[in-house]
Amino acid sequence: MKNKPVNTDGAAVVSVSSVVGKKEYDGPLGEKFDVHDETDRFGQKTFELSESEMQREAMSLTLGKAGLSAADIGAVFAGDLLNQCVGSAYGLIEYDVPYFGLYGACSTAAEGLTLAAMLTSKGIYDRCMSVTSSHNASAERQYRNPLEYGGQRPPTAQWTVTGSGAYLVEGGYGKNSAEHSDGLSPMAYITEVMPGIVVQKGVTDLTNMGAAMAPAAVESLLGYFDSTGTGPDDFDLIITGDLGFEGTSILREILAVSGKDPGDRLTDCGMLIYDRYGQDVHSGGSGCGCSSVVLAAHFLPMLKSGELNDVLFLGTGAMSSPAATRQGQVIPGVAHLLRLMSPAAYERGAKR
Amino acid sequence: MKNKPVNTDGAAVVSVSSVVGKKEYDGPLGEKFDVHDETDRFGQKTFELSESEMQREAMSLTLGKAGLSAADIGAVFAGDLLNQCVGSAYGLIEYDVPYFGLYGACSTAAEGLTLAAMLTSKGIYDRCMSVTSSHNASAERQYRNPLEYGGQRPPTAQWTVTGSGAYLVEGGYGKNSAEHSDGLSPMAYITEVMPGIVVQKGVTDLTNMGAAMAPAAVESLLGYFDSTGTGPDDFDLIITGDLGFEGTSILREILAVSGKDPGDRLTDCGMLIYDRYGQDVHSGGSGCGCSSVVLAAHFLPMLKSGELNDVLFLGTGAMSSPAATRQGQVIPGVAHLLRLMSPAAYERGAKR
Repeated sequence: MKNKPVNTDGAAVVSVSSVVGKKEYDGPLGEKFDVHDETDRFGQKTFELSESEMQREAMSLTLGKAGLSAADIGAVFAGDLLNQCVGSAYGLIEYDVPYFGLYGACSTAAEGLTLAAMLTSKGIYDRCMSVTSSHNASAERQYRNPLEYGGQRPPTAQWTVTGSGAYLVEGGYGKNSAEHSDGLSPMAYITEVMPGIVVQKGVTDLTNMGAAMAPAAVESLLGYFDSTGTGPDDFDLIITGDLGFEGTSILREILAVSGKDPGDRLTDCGMLIYDRYGQDVHSGGSGCGCSSVVLAAHFLPMLKSGELNDVLFLGTGAMSSPAATRQGQVIPGVAHLLRLMSPAAYERGAKR
Repeated sequence: MKNKPVNTDGAAVVSVSSVVGKKEYDGPLGEKFDVHDETDRFGQKTFELSESEMQREAMSLTLGKAGLSAADIGAVFAGDLLNQCVGSAYGLIEYDVPYFGLYGACSTAAEGLTLAAMLTSKGIYDRCMSVTSSHNASAERQYRNPLEYGGQRPPTAQWTVTGSGAYLVEGGYGKNSAEHSDGLSPMAYITEVMPGIVVQKGVTDLTNMGAAMAPAAVESLLGYFDSTGTGPDDFDLIITGDLGFEGTSILREILAVSGKDPGDRLTDCGMLIYDRYGQDVHSGGSGCGCSSVVLAAHFLPMLKSGELNDVLFLGTGAMSSPAATRQGQVIPGVAHLLRLMSPAAYERGAKR
């Protein structure tokens, strides 16, 4: 099957929250995040538990903003970068909500949003949540070296974001009713989703996730353009998850030679979250938390206000495994694509 | 929300396959599995790649039995026990099918079947697959000790199954049409699914997965009985994934004191796959591959023939993490429940 988008009419993101660490708060988007902790610890003894606590807080905040409780949620899609996804398993254990554990590396927020949109759009559940996280200290310890080791980072390396984003997706939004029967209003409609295909192009460098993920973004983006007859000019922005500066330059080059030069419509959550020169992050941010908190705190409010009207969001993930890399395996990538529309644009479209 | 089942009318399992290692072939169900390898290697250099190769073969076989190719599949749900789920990422990389990575520990086959049933039931996709695996050598190395170490196993320990099962789930099966427009016939209908809630009851023993998972099975099973007004006597069998002898005895005891004594209707894939006394497996089989190959090779043919007509299948998982356990954390469990009906019983029900 040539990959093609799935219509998810009626599904909308209605509440989000973002919880981050100190470096993310100190970055250019810092003031937009709901909660931060100067110590990156969130009151916990280990970095792994700190990550779980971020998820717990993010889910709680998202529910609170919507005036809902866990009992109102049909299912939660959750994942993180830790082995056995324990950031999620422990973070969400106090919520009695049916739990789907996901592993999509840094694409997990998009994977969860994709499934949430599919299920709520068809009324299988009224409301689903997607909750994901990463923590710089827990990820570096597991994937590369403990921070105390002080390993030197090459220019292509990205900085794993300490952060967790939680999204509440609700179905039943008709074309002419911006407000739901429960009184909630959409921040953005998820009109289409296109889950990605796993691709690899021979990258084996654990310190160059951008290069491993860029081919997956190419596959999903060109596949979407092709199957819908659209191009970069049809969208306000094309937002990738965490290709960083290195991966984005690769994506940009391949799109240009494919006749789909995105110009300045292409942006990346990993390039936005830190001050490239002031914060020593080399190729930018990465991790399940990266796209999750930037989409929640930066782009979704712009969609809600109508500052953005029609965007493509691609959650990018590198299924990077230290054990597999030591065995000489390449790093597979995947990119899940979602089309997000502002309430204003969605309703205008409905009236055409 | 009190957990309750989701109707997935119209979804059916139409093709399955099972690929196993030597010990599984030597067990009581050995002749039922499609493929086995006496060396557990499947022609590969590492055990991790052997696991991937099992997934590749299982997916290929399931497609072949149905006369379909990867291009006919809308999406695949895949997962395994390896860190970063690389058994699946590498195993399925050659198939150009939209890929949802799952992590549900040993419950992953049920998690994938649940999502496949939901999505095909509502026509979001015509066909989805669920592909999962585990390998004794790769799992023991990662979770406990390399096999060469010869660590002593306590009586509660289970034996990780070397195996992979692949399921093809198709939607569009009406109440009075046992054959689909594409000529495929259901092996069993998935009439309801109830994804599980994460629960823990204080178990921290990495060598007693049964005890960690049994409370989750209780939660899902009693929840299902409660919300549907049914009990054990309403089903031919209640099949758990891999509680093993230890976990099953715990489940049986809790059900009995809850007034839902299942008698001899309760069985467990982990108890069936090996000869308890002849194969030195202590508490039975476990792993993503366990319930996956036993359901595919043993129970689904019995449903297709009408030897079984109406069963509950609970994929049980312990989100057991060596790192978390070293930090003193408990082991969370989850159990995803599916109701499976034979074609004959389903059609009889439709005529009532």
